[in-house]
Amino acid sequence: MTMFDPAAAAAAIRAGDRRALARAITLVESTRGTDRDAAETLLAAVAPHAGGAARLGVSGAPGVGKSTFIEAFGLHLIERGRRLAVLAVDPSGARGGGAILGDKTRMAELAQRPEAFVRPSPSGGAPGAAGRRARDAITLCEAAGYDAVIVETVGAGQSEIAVRDLTDMFLLLVAPGGGDELQGVKRGVLEVADLIVVAKHDGALAAPAGDTAAHYASALRLMRPPTPGWTPRVLLCSALERRGLEAAHEAVESFVRTAASAIARRRAGQALAAMHAELRELLAERLEASPAVTARRAALEARVTAGALPPSAAARALVETFLAALRP
Amino acid sequence: MTMFDPAAAAAAIRAGDRRALARAITLVESTRGTDRDAAETLLAAVAPHAGGAARLGVSGAPGVGKSTFIEAFGLHLIERGRRLAVLAVDPSGARGGGAILGDKTRMAELAQRPEAFVRPSPSGGAPGAAGRRARDAITLCEAAGYDAVIVETVGAGQSEIAVRDLTDMFLLLVAPGGGDELQGVKRGVLEVADLIVVAKHDGALAAPAGDTAAHYASALRLMRPPTPGWTPRVLLCSALERRGLEAAHEAVESFVRTAASAIARRRAGQALAAMHAELRELLAERLEASPAVTARRAALEARVTAGALPPSAAARALVETFLAALRP
Repeated sequence: MTMFDPAAAAAAIRAGDRRALARAITLVESTRGTDRDAAETLLAAVAPHAGGAARLGVSGAPGVGKSTFIEAFGLHLIERGRRLAVLAVDPSGARGGGAILGDKTRMAELAQRPEAFVRPSPSGGAPGAAGRRARDAITLCEAAGYDAVIVETVGAGQSEIAVRDLTDMFLLLVAPGGGDELQGVKRGVLEVADLIVVAKHDGALAAPAGDTAAHYASALRLMRPPTPGWTPRVLLCSALERRGLEAAHEAVESFVRTAASAIARRRAGQALAAMHAELRELLAERLEASPAVTARRAALEARVTAGALPPSAAARALVETFLAALRP
Repeated sequence: MTMFDPAAAAAAIRAGDRRALARAITLVESTRGTDRDAAETLLAAVAPHAGGAARLGVSGAPGVGKSTFIEAFGLHLIERGRRLAVLAVDPSGARGGGAILGDKTRMAELAQRPEAFVRPSPSGGAPGAAGRRARDAITLCEAAGYDAVIVETVGAGQSEIAVRDLTDMFLLLVAPGGGDELQGVKRGVLEVADLIVVAKHDGALAAPAGDTAAHYASALRLMRPPTPGWTPRVLLCSALERRGLEAAHEAVESFVRTAASAIARRRAGQALAAMHAELRELLAERLEASPAVTARRAALEARVTAGALPPSAAARALVETFLAALRP
């Protein structure tokens, strides 16, 4: 990266060079100090050209068919003249190589289209930095002029929250199920859904899918809509038979129009939250790099792991050590 | 709190004074600077006397009957000569007054027993600090001599992860359901479960509960056990008919014996992770209090919320400002 030219990279990304975009995302995902500096310069250069895409988070339990839906939906958007990028967020920071291979093959048709950019999931890295990496990747995709950026949850647990915090609209994909399928989706995830898509609305599952949609629709009526100005919808969809995709597309476009002011407020709040999270990471990095901290650290950690010192007391001692060493 | 005497408080807690314990937990939950100082002193005083309890995390979807199970299980432990504390963790940091009232009434029988300490859920506070508060509360309960500390998840999303990171053993409570009920529980939660308890094993639900237990048992066989030295179990339980409680008790005792070295490693790792999380919070607090930062902050935040400056660039500028002001 010694010859990396941020201005040239920014120009290539804006001109629609997908390889330049892919390299830039790899750069913002890097944890090396020199890469971080280059990434900052690049991001500052493209930031004024970002913000133009609809940011769509897609979540759903494993096996529900997220990739299949995203591929069918993406191809539909392309038919409608749109360009889109697909990213994945895994806040656990622990992925194997197999999953990346899976990504590359599973959206093969979409990935081959010049109107689409499909990014394999990031392969590890610091868990706390997953949100920042994804946010920077969204910025780069927007600078590249994509009309929509789809951010898919990968892994479990914190993924939905991370994706909700990165996007304008939260789409929850659910499978047709029996009467008690609502138990399967956590209330907290339902509460943030702007759009629920019941997948696999085809063949033998068509009837159960209809029942499931009715269940979710009545559940949503009991909840406060997460986005002011927008009433969450429930749609039926078949990726196999390519049905319901236009309704989903229409819902996204309608959301972007109707909830414009809520989206603007949401983005401002997300950016501030990202700034605060990044502050903490940067400060911790500086502390880790302090020789004065290094000198005391092992002894304090030994007492903490032995249970002899509360973690908070050790943290306070290290912070005092760090700051005192900076003072004259 | 001006007259607060940490040594006296520590002695009262160790002597089993439940009001002193309740006040101390309120103190460690406080965000006031003077309270934080007092809390640190108190925690340092009791830390050497902590660590003796079995730390049991209990999670489960809303409506599965967590409180009912915990009350019945707690009363059973008391019958077996044990003393226990029940805490709750809500990483969202946003609770209403109603939930607290619910806590107070719902474990009424257990809360009245002198052998038990039932703490209502913390009512708000900074989201990032929920883990620290709960960790400190566990330390205080252990110093008070409880044999078991049950930490219950409250809210959704990040709760399970927070509770897993605070406890030795993770108990997942599930309800009897149809054939596809596994869809309801996220794989990520199943993967960290040391013990699965199928609740409501009584009346009309007795047969479905058995089927559900068999489903979970076969699902567990496909997963890597989360705790080295321990094979996760699936148990059937009826809080109503007080059945299966001794099996759950036996599983906890067996886990503590069998997985002792894994528990020790887990606790050491948890303590270090807590130290690192606390470091970040303390550093951010110091930065927030810096007059040099205050002078630049509003202008940077305005550019970030307008989308003109990447959050990471603003964070970097604030960190540089903070550290530069400390130097001579």
